[in-house]
Amino acid sequence: MDERPGTSVPARVLAVDARGTRVRSDRLATEEPLEIRLLDATGHRTAAVTMRTPGSDFELAAGFLHGEGVIAVPEDVRAIGYCLDPGTVEEQRLNIVTVQLAEHLRPDLSSLERHFLTTSACGVCGKASLESLDVRSRPISGDGPTVDPATLRCLPARLRAAQGLFQATGGLHAAALFHADGELVAVREDVGRHNAVDKLIGWALLAGRLPLRDDLVLVSGRASFEIMQKCLAAGVGVVCAVSAPSSLAVSLAERFGMTLVGFLREERFNVYAGAGRILPEDAAPRSAART
Amino acid sequence: MDERPGTSVPARVLAVDARGTRVRSDRLATEEPLEIRLLDATGHRTAAVTMRTPGSDFELAAGFLHGEGVIAVPEDVRAIGYCLDPGTVEEQRLNIVTVQLAEHLRPDLSSLERHFLTTSACGVCGKASLESLDVRSRPISGDGPTVDPATLRCLPARLRAAQGLFQATGGLHAAALFHADGELVAVREDVGRHNAVDKLIGWALLAGRLPLRDDLVLVSGRASFEIMQKCLAAGVGVVCAVSAPSSLAVSLAERFGMTLVGFLREERFNVYAGAGRILPEDAAPRSAART
Repeated sequence: MDERPGTSVPARVLAVDARGTRVRSDRLATEEPLEIRLLDATGHRTAAVTMRTPGSDFELAAGFLHGEGVIAVPEDVRAIGYCLDPGTVEEQRLNIVTVQLAEHLRPDLSSLERHFLTTSACGVCGKASLESLDVRSRPISGDGPTVDPATLRCLPARLRAAQGLFQATGGLHAAALFHADGELVAVREDVGRHNAVDKLIGWALLAGRLPLRDDLVLVSGRASFEIMQKCLAAGVGVVCAVSAPSSLAVSLAERFGMTLVGFLREERFNVYAGAGRILPEDAAPRSAART
Repeated sequence: MDERPGTSVPARVLAVDARGTRVRSDRLATEEPLEIRLLDATGHRTAAVTMRTPGSDFELAAGFLHGEGVIAVPEDVRAIGYCLDPGTVEEQRLNIVTVQLAEHLRPDLSSLERHFLTTSACGVCGKASLESLDVRSRPISGDGPTVDPATLRCLPARLRAAQGLFQATGGLHAAALFHADGELVAVREDVGRHNAVDKLIGWALLAGRLPLRDDLVLVSGRASFEIMQKCLAAGVGVVCAVSAPSSLAVSLAERFGMTLVGFLREERFNVYAGAGRILPEDAAPRSAART
Protein backbone atom coordinates (compact mmCIF):
# COMPACT_ATOMS: atom_id res chain seq x y z
CA MET A 1 0.00 0.00 0.00
CA ASP A 2 1.51 3.33 -0.93
CA GLU A 3 1.94 5.72 1.93
CA ARG A 4 0.55 9.17 1.41
CA PRO A 5 2.80 11.86 2.81
CA GLY A 6 1.80 13.00 6.23
CA THR A 7 -0.33 10.09 7.42
CA SER A 8 2.45 8.91 9.69
CA VAL A 9 5.72 10.35 10.89
CA PRO A 10 8.97 8.65 11.91
CA ALA A 11 9.99 8.54 15.56
CA ARG A 12 12.80 7.16 17.72
CA VAL A 13 11.54 5.19 20.68
CA LEU A 14 13.10 3.43 23.63
CA ALA A 15 11.67 -0.11 23.49
CA VAL A 16 11.76 -1.91 26.85
CA ASP A 17 10.98 -5.59 27.36
CA ALA A 18 12.23 -8.51 29.40
CA ARG A 19 15.27 -8.82 27.14
CA GLY A 20 16.38 -5.27 27.82
CA THR A 21 16.20 -1.75 26.46
CA ARG A 22 17.02 -0.64 22.95
CA VAL A 23 16.48 2.40 20.77
CA ARG A 24 14.56 1.66 17.60
CA SER A 25 12.76 3.43 14.78
CA ASP A 26 9.00 3.59 14.90
CA ARG A 27 6.19 5.39 13.12
CA LEU A 28 3.47 7.49 14.73
CA ALA A 29 0.01 8.11 13.32
CA THR A 30 -0.17 11.80 12.45
CA GLU A 31 -2.69 13.86 14.41
CA GLU A 32 -3.38 17.39 13.20
CA PRO A 33 -6.40 19.68 13.53
CA LEU A 34 -8.66 20.13 10.51
CA GLU A 35 -11.00 23.09 10.25
CA ILE A 36 -14.03 22.46 8.05
CA ARG A 37 -15.35 25.74 6.61
CA LEU A 38 -18.64 26.30 4.86
CA LEU A 39 -18.92 28.84 2.10
CA ASP A 40 -22.39 29.84 0.92
CA ALA A 41 -24.20 32.98 -0.21
CA THR A 42 -24.01 34.39 3.31
CA GLY A 43 -20.25 33.98 3.58
CA HIS A 44 -17.72 31.84 5.43
CA ARG A 45 -18.47 29.91 8.58
CA THR A 46 -16.48 27.35 10.54
CA ALA A 47 -18.55 24.19 10.78
CA ALA A 48 -16.16 22.15 12.90
CA VAL A 49 -12.59 21.63 14.02
CA THR A 50 -11.55 18.02 14.45
CA MET A 51 -8.26 16.35 15.32
CA ARG A 52 -7.60 14.00 12.42
CA THR A 53 -4.99 12.10 10.46
CA PRO A 54 -4.23 13.98 7.22
CA GLY A 55 -5.46 12.27 4.05
CA SER A 56 -8.92 12.00 2.48
CA ASP A 57 -9.62 15.44 3.91
CA PHE A 58 -12.24 16.37 1.31
CA GLU A 59 -14.04 13.09 1.99
CA LEU A 60 -13.85 13.75 5.72
CA ALA A 61 -15.42 17.18 5.26
CA ALA A 62 -18.16 15.84 2.98
CA GLY A 63 -18.89 12.88 5.26
CA PHE A 64 -19.05 15.07 8.35
CA LEU A 65 -21.48 17.49 6.71
CA HIS A 66 -23.59 14.59 5.45
CA GLY A 67 -23.83 13.05 8.91
CA GLU A 68 -24.98 16.40 10.27
CA GLY A 69 -27.67 16.74 7.60
CA VAL A 70 -26.08 19.81 6.00
CA ILE A 71 -25.63 18.08 2.61
CA ALA A 72 -27.46 15.07 1.18
CA VAL A 73 -26.37 14.52 -2.43
CA PRO A 74 -23.20 15.29 -4.42
CA GLU A 75 -25.00 18.18 -6.13
CA ASP A 76 -25.24 19.98 -2.79
CA VAL A 77 -21.49 20.54 -3.03
CA ARG A 78 -20.20 23.03 -5.58
CA ALA A 79 -16.54 22.68 -4.71
CA ILE A 80 -14.25 21.38 -1.99
CA GLY A 81 -10.73 22.68 -1.63
CA TYR A 82 -7.91 23.53 0.72
CA CYS A 83 -7.65 27.08 1.99
CA LEU A 84 -5.98 29.29 -0.62
CA ASP A 85 -5.99 32.44 1.47
CA PRO A 86 -2.54 33.96 0.87
CA GLY A 87 -2.67 35.34 4.40
CA THR A 88 -2.62 31.81 5.78
CA VAL A 89 0.79 30.27 6.37
CA GLU A 90 1.69 27.26 4.29
CA GLU A 91 1.69 24.91 7.27
CA GLN A 92 -1.95 25.67 8.05
CA ARG A 93 -3.40 25.68 4.52
CA LEU A 94 -3.61 21.90 4.36
CA ASN A 95 -5.47 21.93 7.67
CA ILE A 96 -8.35 24.05 6.41
CA VAL A 97 -10.91 22.61 3.99
CA THR A 98 -13.55 24.89 2.52
CA VAL A 99 -16.78 23.34 1.25
CA GLN A 100 -18.63 25.60 -1.15
CA LEU A 101 -22.31 24.75 -1.05
CA ALA A 102 -24.67 24.81 -4.02
CA GLU A 103 -26.51 28.09 -4.38
CA HIS A 104 -29.92 26.62 -3.56
CA LEU A 105 -28.69 25.40 -0.18
CA ARG A 106 -29.53 27.34 2.96
CA PRO A 107 -28.28 24.90 5.56
CA ASP A 108 -29.72 24.80 9.03
CA LEU A 109 -26.61 24.79 11.14
CA SER A 110 -28.46 24.22 14.37
CA SER A 111 -27.60 20.53 14.06
CA LEU A 112 -23.94 21.43 14.20
CA GLU A 113 -24.51 23.32 17.41
CA ARG A 114 -26.25 20.28 18.85
CA HIS A 115 -22.83 18.82 19.60
CA PHE A 116 -21.74 21.88 21.44
CA LEU A 117 -24.41 24.13 22.77
CA THR A 118 -27.90 22.79 23.17
CA THR A 119 -30.90 25.00 23.50
CA SER A 120 -33.38 24.41 26.27
CA ALA A 121 -35.79 23.15 23.63
CA CYS A 122 -33.49 20.21 22.96
CA GLY A 123 -33.82 17.37 25.41
CA VAL A 124 -30.76 15.93 27.06
CA CYS A 125 -31.30 12.21 27.35
CA GLY A 126 -30.88 9.15 25.18
CA LYS A 127 -34.55 9.15 24.16
CA ALA A 128 -34.37 12.79 23.11
CA SER A 129 -31.18 12.10 21.18
CA LEU A 130 -32.98 9.37 19.23
CA GLU A 131 -36.07 11.51 18.70
CA SER A 132 -33.98 14.30 17.24
CA LEU A 133 -32.96 11.86 14.49
CA ASP A 134 -36.58 11.05 13.63
CA VAL A 135 -36.90 14.41 11.94
CA ARG A 136 -34.28 13.78 9.31
CA SER A 137 -33.78 10.02 9.15
CA ARG A 138 -35.92 7.33 7.66
CA PRO A 139 -35.74 3.85 9.18
CA ILE A 140 -33.75 1.35 7.14
CA SER A 141 -36.38 -0.72 5.39
CA GLY A 142 -36.50 -4.47 5.86
CA ASP A 143 -35.05 -5.10 2.43
CA GLY A 144 -31.43 -4.35 3.29
CA PRO A 145 -28.75 -6.94 2.61
CA THR A 146 -28.77 -10.39 4.18
CA VAL A 147 -25.42 -11.69 5.34
CA ASP A 148 -23.98 -15.13 5.79
CA PRO A 149 -22.28 -15.72 9.20
CA ALA A 150 -19.26 -17.24 7.44
CA THR A 151 -18.89 -14.04 5.42
CA LEU A 152 -19.05 -11.89 8.57
CA ARG A 153 -16.28 -13.93 10.19
CA CYS A 154 -13.94 -13.18 7.27
CA LEU A 155 -14.31 -9.40 7.47
CA PRO A 156 -11.88 -8.52 10.29
CA ALA A 157 -9.00 -10.32 8.54
CA ARG A 158 -9.84 -8.57 5.26
CA LEU A 159 -9.89 -5.22 7.03
CA ARG A 160 -6.51 -5.89 8.65
CA ALA A 161 -5.02 -6.95 5.32
CA ALA A 162 -6.21 -3.68 3.77
CA GLN A 163 -4.95 -1.54 6.62
CA GLY A 164 -1.48 -0.50 5.64
CA LEU A 165 -1.04 2.21 8.20
CA PHE A 166 -2.41 0.36 11.16
CA GLN A 167 0.29 -2.21 10.93
CA ALA A 168 2.91 0.51 10.66
CA THR A 169 1.79 2.62 13.61
CA GLY A 170 -0.73 0.55 15.57
CA GLY A 171 -2.48 3.82 16.21
CA LEU A 172 -5.21 4.14 13.61
CA HIS A 173 -8.87 3.29 13.62
CA ALA A 174 -10.44 2.04 10.41
CA ALA A 175 -13.86 1.99 8.81
CA ALA A 176 -14.50 -0.28 5.84
CA LEU A 177 -17.30 -0.77 3.36
CA PHE A 178 -18.01 -4.32 2.21
CA HIS A 179 -20.49 -5.81 -0.24
CA ALA A 180 -22.83 -8.28 1.42
CA ASP A 181 -20.80 -11.10 -0.14
CA GLY A 182 -17.70 -9.94 1.75
CA GLU A 183 -15.91 -8.09 -1.04
CA LEU A 184 -14.02 -5.07 0.27
CA VAL A 185 -15.19 -1.88 -1.43
CA ALA A 186 -13.28 0.84 0.43
CA VAL A 187 -11.38 1.44 3.66
CA ARG A 188 -10.41 4.67 5.41
CA GLU A 189 -8.20 5.23 8.45
CA ASP A 190 -7.84 7.91 11.10
CA VAL A 191 -6.71 8.48 14.68
CA GLY A 192 -10.38 9.25 15.34
CA ARG A 193 -13.00 6.55 14.89
CA HIS A 194 -15.65 9.08 13.89
CA ASN A 195 -13.33 10.60 11.32
CA ALA A 196 -12.67 7.20 9.70
CA VAL A 197 -16.44 6.75 9.27
CA ASP A 198 -16.83 10.30 7.95
CA LYS A 199 -14.06 9.68 5.39
CA LEU A 200 -15.69 6.45 4.25
CA ILE A 201 -19.18 7.89 3.91
CA GLY A 202 -17.85 11.10 2.39
CA TRP A 203 -16.12 9.01 -0.26
CA ALA A 204 -19.36 7.19 -1.00
CA LEU A 205 -21.30 10.46 -1.15
CA LEU A 206 -18.88 12.13 -3.55
CA ALA A 207 -18.84 8.98 -5.70
CA GLY A 208 -22.64 9.10 -5.96
CA ARG A 209 -23.02 5.79 -4.10
CA LEU A 210 -25.45 6.85 -1.36
CA PRO A 211 -27.63 5.39 0.03
CA LEU A 212 -25.52 2.31 0.79
CA ARG A 213 -28.50 0.00 0.99
CA ASP A 214 -26.75 -3.18 -0.15
CA ASP A 215 -23.46 -2.83 1.70
CA LEU A 216 -22.24 -3.19 5.24
CA VAL A 217 -19.83 -1.14 7.33
CA LEU A 218 -17.18 -2.52 9.70
CA VAL A 219 -15.50 -0.27 12.29
CA SER A 220 -12.31 -1.31 14.05
CA GLY A 221 -13.35 -0.16 17.52
CA ARG A 222 -16.58 0.27 19.42
CA ALA A 223 -19.99 1.23 18.10
CA SER A 224 -21.29 4.43 19.69
CA PHE A 225 -24.38 6.53 19.09
CA GLU A 226 -22.52 8.85 16.75
CA ILE A 227 -21.10 6.04 14.62
CA MET A 228 -24.59 4.61 14.20
CA GLN A 229 -26.04 8.03 13.45
CA LYS A 230 -23.59 8.56 10.59
CA CYS A 231 -24.30 5.10 9.16
CA LEU A 232 -28.05 5.63 9.44
CA ALA A 233 -27.77 8.88 7.51
CA ALA A 234 -25.94 6.97 4.76
CA GLY A 235 -28.64 4.28 4.61
CA VAL A 236 -26.37 1.50 5.88
CA GLY A 237 -28.47 -1.45 7.04
CA VAL A 238 -25.75 -3.58 8.66
CA VAL A 239 -23.07 -2.11 10.95
CA CYS A 240 -20.39 -4.36 12.46
CA ALA A 241 -17.89 -3.45 15.18
CA VAL A 242 -14.79 -5.33 16.27
CA SER A 243 -15.52 -4.26 19.85
CA ALA A 244 -18.57 -3.53 22.03
CA PRO A 245 -21.60 -1.40 21.20
CA SER A 246 -22.99 1.12 23.70
CA SER A 247 -26.53 1.07 25.03
CA LEU A 248 -27.55 4.02 22.88
CA ALA A 249 -26.01 2.47 19.75
CA VAL A 250 -28.24 -0.58 20.25
CA SER A 251 -31.30 1.59 20.93
CA LEU A 252 -30.66 3.54 17.73
CA ALA A 253 -30.28 0.33 15.72
CA GLU A 254 -33.55 -1.03 17.12
CA ARG A 255 -35.46 2.20 16.54
CA PHE A 256 -34.32 2.60 12.95
CA GLY A 257 -34.35 -1.03 11.82
CA MET A 258 -30.59 -1.42 11.53
CA THR A 259 -28.61 -4.61 12.14
CA LEU A 260 -25.83 -4.17 14.73
CA VAL A 261 -23.13 -6.81 15.12
CA GLY A 262 -20.52 -6.45 17.89
CA PHE A 263 -17.37 -8.28 19.04
CA LEU A 264 -16.79 -9.47 15.48
CA ARG A 265 -13.42 -11.17 16.01
CA GLU A 266 -11.77 -14.53 16.37
CA GLU A 267 -14.46 -16.49 14.52
CA ARG A 268 -17.34 -15.25 16.64
CA PHE A 269 -19.75 -12.31 16.91
CA ASN A 270 -22.82 -11.06 18.77
CA VAL A 271 -25.97 -9.70 17.12
CA TYR A 272 -27.46 -6.85 19.16
CA ALA A 273 -30.25 -5.76 16.81
CA GLY A 274 -31.80 -6.68 13.48
CA ALA A 275 -30.92 -10.40 13.54
CA GLY A 276 -33.29 -10.93 10.61
CA ARG A 277 -30.57 -9.87 8.16
CA ILE A 278 -28.17 -12.58 9.40
CA LEU A 279 -28.76 -15.80 7.46
CA PRO A 280 -29.18 -19.04 9.44
CA GLU A 281 -25.92 -20.80 10.13
CA ASP A 282 -27.25 -23.83 8.20
CA ALA A 283 -27.06 -21.89 4.98
CA ALA A 284 -23.35 -21.27 5.52
CA PRO A 285 -20.40 -23.50 4.60
CA ARG A 286 -19.45 -23.77 8.26
CA SER A 287 -22.75 -25.36 9.24
CA ALA A 288 -21.10 -28.76 9.64
CA ALA A 289 -19.31 -27.42 12.70
CA ARG A 290 -22.56 -26.60 14.42
CA THR A 291 -23.31 -28.56 17.58
CA MET B 1 -17.12 -4.01 42.75
CA ASP B 2 -20.57 -2.63 43.41
CA GLU B 3 -22.43 -1.56 40.35
CA ARG B 4 -23.81 1.93 40.43
CA PRO B 5 -27.24 2.11 38.85
CA GLY B 6 -27.16 3.14 35.26
CA THR B 7 -23.56 2.43 34.33
CA SER B 8 -24.59 -0.62 32.35
CA VAL B 9 -27.86 -2.03 31.12
CA PRO B 10 -28.94 -5.62 30.48
CA ALA B 11 -29.40 -6.84 26.91
CA ARG B 12 -30.35 -10.02 25.08
CA VAL B 13 -27.90 -10.90 22.32
CA LEU B 14 -27.62 -13.59 19.69
CA ALA B 15 -24.14 -15.06 20.19
CA VAL B 16 -22.79 -16.80 17.08
CA ASP B 17 -19.63 -18.91 17.00
CA ALA B 18 -18.37 -22.08 15.36
CA ARG B 19 -20.44 -24.16 17.81
CA GLY B 20 -23.67 -22.52 16.76
CA THR B 21 -26.08 -19.76 17.66
CA ARG B 22 -27.61 -19.10 21.06
CA VAL B 23 -29.48 -16.34 22.81
CA ARG B 24 -27.76 -15.11 25.95
CA SER B 25 -27.86 -12.27 28.45
CA ASP B 26 -25.28 -9.55 28.12
CA ARG B 27 -24.62 -6.13 29.55
CA LEU B 28 -24.07 -2.94 27.57
CA ALA B 29 -22.10 0.09 28.71
CA THR B 30 -24.61 2.90 29.13
CA GLU B 31 -24.16 5.89 26.82
CA GLU B 32 -26.21 9.01 27.58
CA PRO B 33 -25.65 12.69 26.82
CA LEU B 34 -24.49 14.97 29.64
CA GLU B 35 -24.91 18.71 29.45
CA ILE B 36 -22.43 20.66 31.56
CA ARG B 37 -23.86 24.07 32.50
CA LEU B 38 -22.00 26.98 34.01
CA LEU B 39 -23.73 29.30 36.44
CA ASP B 40 -22.03 32.58 37.32
CA ALA B 41 -23.00 36.17 37.97
CA THR B 42 -23.96 36.63 34.32
CA GLY B 43 -26.35 33.64 34.30
CA HIS B 44 -26.54 30.14 32.87
CA ARG B 45 -24.49 28.94 29.92
CA THR B 46 -24.01 25.51 28.37
CA ALA B 47 -20.30 24.72 28.40
CA ALA B 48 -20.47 21.35 26.66
CA VAL B 49 -22.58 18.34 25.79
CA THR B 50 -20.76 15.03 25.83
CA MET B 51 -21.88 11.43 25.34
CA ARG B 52 -20.84 9.67 28.53
CA THR B 53 -21.48 6.74 30.84
CA PRO B 54 -23.51 7.91 33.86
CA GLY B 55 -21.58 7.95 37.15
CA SER B 56 -18.98 10.36 38.56
CA ASP B 57 -20.83 13.11 36.69
CA PHE B 58 -19.75 15.93 39.04
CA GLU B 59 -16.14 14.80 38.68
CA LEU B 60 -16.56 14.67 34.90
CA ALA B 61 -17.87 18.25 34.86
CA ALA B 62 -15.09 19.49 37.14
CA GLY B 63 -12.39 17.67 35.21
CA PHE B 64 -13.65 18.94 31.88
CA LEU B 65 -13.69 22.55 33.09
CA HIS B 66 -10.22 22.12 34.58
CA GLY B 67 -8.81 20.80 31.32
CA GLU B 68 -10.29 23.80 29.53
CA GLY B 69 -8.73 26.24 31.97
CA VAL B 70 -12.09 27.48 33.29
CA ILE B 71 -11.36 26.36 36.88
CA ALA B 72 -8.02 25.69 38.55
CA VAL B 73 -8.56 24.99 42.27
CA PRO B 74 -11.46 23.55 44.31
CA GLU B 75 -12.30 27.05 45.57
CA ASP B 76 -13.23 28.06 42.02
CA VAL B 77 -16.32 25.86 42.38
CA ARG B 78 -19.09 27.02 44.68
CA ALA B 79 -21.42 24.10 44.05
CA ILE B 80 -22.01 21.25 41.61
CA GLY B 81 -25.41 19.64 41.30
CA TYR B 82 -27.89 17.98 39.00
CA CYS B 83 -30.49 20.14 37.35
CA LEU B 84 -33.36 20.82 39.75
CA ASP B 85 -35.44 22.81 37.30
CA PRO B 86 -38.99 21.51 37.87
CA GLY B 87 -39.69 22.19 34.20
CA THR B 88 -37.20 19.48 33.25
CA VAL B 89 -38.53 15.95 33.03
CA GLU B 90 -37.16 13.44 35.50
CA GLU B 91 -35.38 11.46 32.81
CA GLN B 92 -33.29 14.44 31.77
CA ARG B 93 -32.42 15.87 35.19
CA LEU B 94 -29.62 13.39 35.78
CA ASN B 95 -28.17 14.33 32.40
CA ILE B 96 -27.66 17.99 33.26
CA VAL B 97 -24.95 19.06 35.71
CA THR B 98 -24.74 22.69 36.76
CA VAL B 99 -21.43 24.02 38.04
CA GLN B 100 -21.81 27.19 40.05
CA LEU B 101 -18.59 29.17 39.87
CA ALA B 102 -17.08 31.21 42.68
CA GLU B 103 -18.10 34.85 42.57
CA HIS B 104 -14.62 36.12 41.74
CA LEU B 105 -14.46 33.97 38.60
CA ARG B 106 -15.07 35.55 35.21
CA PRO B 107 -14.14 32.64 32.98
CA ASP B 108 -12.88 33.17 29.48
CA LEU B 109 -14.99 30.73 27.54
CA SER B 110 -13.10 31.21 24.31
CA SER B 111 -11.13 28.06 25.12
CA LEU B 112 -14.38 26.11 25.07
CA GLU B 113 -15.13 27.44 21.63
CA ARG B 114 -11.72 26.31 20.48
CA HIS B 115 -13.13 22.81 20.12
CA PHE B 116 -15.94 24.01 17.99
CA LEU B 117 -15.57 27.30 16.26
CA THR B 118 -12.13 28.75 15.87
CA THR B 119 -11.53 32.36 15.15
CA SER B 120 -9.24 33.39 12.35
CA ALA B 121 -6.74 34.52 14.97
CA CYS B 122 -6.34 30.90 16.08
CA GLY B 123 -3.95 28.88 13.98
CA VAL B 124 -5.01 25.51 12.65
CA CYS B 125 -2.01 23.25 12.78
CA GLY B 126 -0.26 21.06 15.30
CA LYS B 127 2.30 23.75 16.11
CA ALA B 128 -0.41 26.31 16.73
CA SER B 129 -2.31 23.82 18.90
CA LEU B 130 0.79 23.39 21.06
CA GLU B 131 1.46 27.13 21.19
CA SER B 132 -2.06 27.79 22.41
CA LEU B 133 -1.19 25.69 25.48
CA ASP B 134 1.90 27.76 26.25
CA VAL B 135 -0.29 30.56 27.52
CA ARG B 136 -1.83 28.59 30.35
CA SER B 137 0.42 25.60 30.93
CA ARG B 138 3.77 25.40 32.63
CA PRO B 139 6.13 22.63 31.56
CA ILE B 140 6.39 19.71 33.97
CA SER B 141 9.62 20.30 35.82
CA GLY B 142 12.38 17.71 35.78
CA ASP B 143 11.66 16.63 39.32
CA GLY B 144 8.57 14.53 38.55
CA PRO B 145 8.42 10.92 39.70
CA THR B 146 10.92 8.32 38.57
CA VAL B 147 9.50 4.92 37.74
CA ASP B 148 10.90 1.44 37.79
CA PRO B 149 10.26 -0.58 34.57
CA ALA B 150 9.08 -3.56 36.63
CA THR B 151 6.48 -1.32 38.25
CA LEU B 152 5.26 -0.07 34.87
CA ARG B 153 4.78 -3.65 33.64
CA CYS B 154 2.45 -4.40 36.56
CA LEU B 155 0.09 -1.50 35.91
CA PRO B 156 -2.13 -2.93 33.12
CA ALA B 157 -3.00 -6.00 35.22
CA ARG B 158 -3.79 -3.79 38.21
CA LEU B 159 -6.01 -1.61 36.05
CA ARG B 160 -7.86 -4.65 34.71
CA ALA B 161 -8.34 -6.02 38.21
CA ALA B 162 -9.87 -2.72 39.29
CA GLN B 163 -12.11 -2.42 36.25
CA GLY B 164 -15.35 -4.02 37.30
CA LEU B 165 -17.45 -2.70 34.47
CA PHE B 166 -15.05 -3.40 31.67
CA GLN B 167 -15.20 -7.09 32.32
CA ALA B 168 -18.98 -6.97 32.39
CA THR B 169 -19.51 -5.04 29.16
CA GLY B 170 -16.18 -4.97 27.32
CA GLY B 171 -17.18 -1.51 26.23
CA LEU B 172 -15.59 0.93 28.65
CA HIS B 173 -12.39 2.89 28.55
CA ALA B 174 -10.55 3.50 31.81
CA ALA B 175 -8.16 6.04 33.23
CA ALA B 176 -6.25 5.26 36.41
CA LEU B 177 -4.02 7.16 38.78
CA PHE B 178 -1.09 5.30 40.32
CA HIS B 179 1.59 6.27 42.80
CA ALA B 180 5.08 5.97 41.36
CA ASP B 181 5.54 2.75 43.35
CA GLY B 182 2.61 1.16 41.46
CA GLU B 183 -0.10 1.56 44.09
CA LEU B 184 -3.51 2.22 42.53
CA VAL B 185 -4.98 5.48 43.78
CA ALA B 186 -8.16 5.83 41.70
CA VAL B 187 -9.78 4.53 38.52
CA ARG B 188 -12.64 5.93 36.45
CA GLU B 189 -14.48 4.41 33.48
CA ASP B 190 -16.48 5.73 30.55
CA VAL B 191 -17.50 4.90 26.98
CA GLY B 192 -15.39 7.93 26.05
CA ARG B 193 -11.67 7.91 26.71
CA HIS B 194 -11.60 11.67 27.27
CA ASN B 195 -14.44 11.43 29.76
CA ALA B 196 -12.61 8.77 31.78
CA VAL B 197 -9.63 11.13 32.07
CA ASP B 198 -11.90 14.07 32.96
CA LYS B 199 -13.57 12.00 35.70
CA LEU B 200 -10.18 11.01 37.14
CA ILE B 201 -8.73 14.51 37.12
CA GLY B 202 -12.02 16.03 38.32
CA TRP B 203 -11.91 13.66 41.28
CA ALA B 204 -8.35 14.73 42.08
CA LEU B 205 -9.27 18.41 41.73
CA LEU B 206 -12.28 18.18 44.05
CA ALA B 207 -10.21 16.18 46.54
CA GLY B 208 -7.60 18.95 46.59
CA ARG B 209 -4.92 16.67 45.13
CA LEU B 210 -3.80 18.79 42.18
CA PRO B 211 -1.16 19.13 40.85
CA LEU B 212 -0.45 15.39 40.57
CA ARG B 213 3.31 15.82 40.48
CA ASP B 214 4.22 12.50 42.11
CA ASP B 215 1.72 10.21 40.38
CA LEU B 216 1.27 8.70 36.95
CA VAL B 217 -1.78 8.20 34.76
CA LEU B 218 -2.58 5.08 32.71
CA VAL B 219 -5.22 5.19 29.96
CA SER B 220 -6.69 2.01 28.51
CA GLY B 221 -6.57 3.12 24.87
CA ARG B 222 -4.50 5.48 22.77
CA ALA B 223 -2.80 8.69 23.81
CA SER B 224 -4.04 11.66 21.79
CA PHE B 225 -3.34 15.38 21.97
CA GLU B 226 -6.41 15.99 24.11
CA ILE B 227 -5.55 13.27 26.63
CA MET B 228 -2.08 14.75 27.04
CA GLN B 229 -3.48 18.26 27.31
CA LYS B 230 -5.75 17.26 30.21
CA CYS B 231 -2.88 15.50 31.99
CA LEU B 232 -0.56 18.47 31.46
CA ALA B 233 -3.14 20.80 33.01
CA ALA B 234 -3.23 18.48 36.05
CA GLY B 235 0.56 18.51 36.38
CA VAL B 236 0.96 14.80 35.57
CA GLY B 237 4.58 14.07 34.68
CA VAL B 238 4.21 10.47 33.45
CA VAL B 239 1.39 9.35 31.13
CA CYS B 240 1.13 5.71 30.03
CA ALA B 241 -1.15 4.28 27.36
CA VAL B 242 -2.00 0.65 26.65
CA SER B 243 -2.06 1.49 22.95
CA ALA B 244 -0.28 3.87 20.55
CA PRO B 245 0.34 7.60 20.97
CA SER B 246 -0.32 10.03 18.13
CA SER B 247 2.31 12.33 16.64
CA LEU B 248 0.86 15.38 18.38
CA ALA B 249 0.69 13.58 21.73
CA VAL B 250 4.44 12.94 21.48
CA SER B 251 5.12 16.54 20.40
CA LEU B 252 3.16 17.84 23.37
CA ALA B 253 5.04 15.55 25.77
CA GLU B 254 8.39 16.71 24.38
CA ARG B 255 7.47 20.39 24.48
CA PHE B 256 6.19 20.32 28.05
CA GLY B 257 8.70 17.93 29.59
CA MET B 258 6.28 15.03 30.11
CA THR B 259 7.14 11.33 29.99
CA LEU B 260 4.99 9.39 27.51
CA VAL B 261 4.91 5.58 27.56
CA GLY B 262 2.95 3.68 24.90
CA PHE B 263 2.05 0.05 24.15
CA LEU B 264 2.29 -0.78 27.85
CA ARG B 265 1.10 -4.39 27.67
CA GLU B 266 2.29 -7.95 27.78
CA GLU B 267 5.46 -7.23 29.73
CA ARG B 268 6.77 -4.58 27.37
CA PHE B 269 6.45 -0.87 26.61
CA ASN B 270 7.87 1.93 24.49
CA VAL B 271 9.06 5.29 25.79
CA TYR B 272 8.23 8.10 23.37
CA ALA B 273 9.34 11.11 25.43
CA GLY B 274 10.92 11.93 28.76
CA ALA B 275 12.90 8.70 29.18
CA GLY B 276 14.84 10.33 32.03
CA ARG B 277 12.03 9.47 34.46
CA ILE B 278 12.28 5.73 33.69
CA LEU B 279 14.87 4.11 35.97
CA PRO B 280 17.53 1.87 34.38
CA GLU B 281 16.45 -1.75 34.04
CA ASP B 282 19.40 -2.75 36.26
CA ALA B 283 17.76 -1.13 39.23
CA ALA B 284 14.69 -3.32 38.78
CA PRO B 285 14.02 -6.82 40.12
CA ARG B 286 13.70 -8.14 36.55
CA SER B 287 17.27 -7.17 35.66
CA ALA B 288 18.36 -10.81 35.82
CA ALA B 289 16.26 -11.48 32.72
CA ARG B 290 18.18 -8.90 30.74
CA THR B 291 20.29 -10.22 27.89
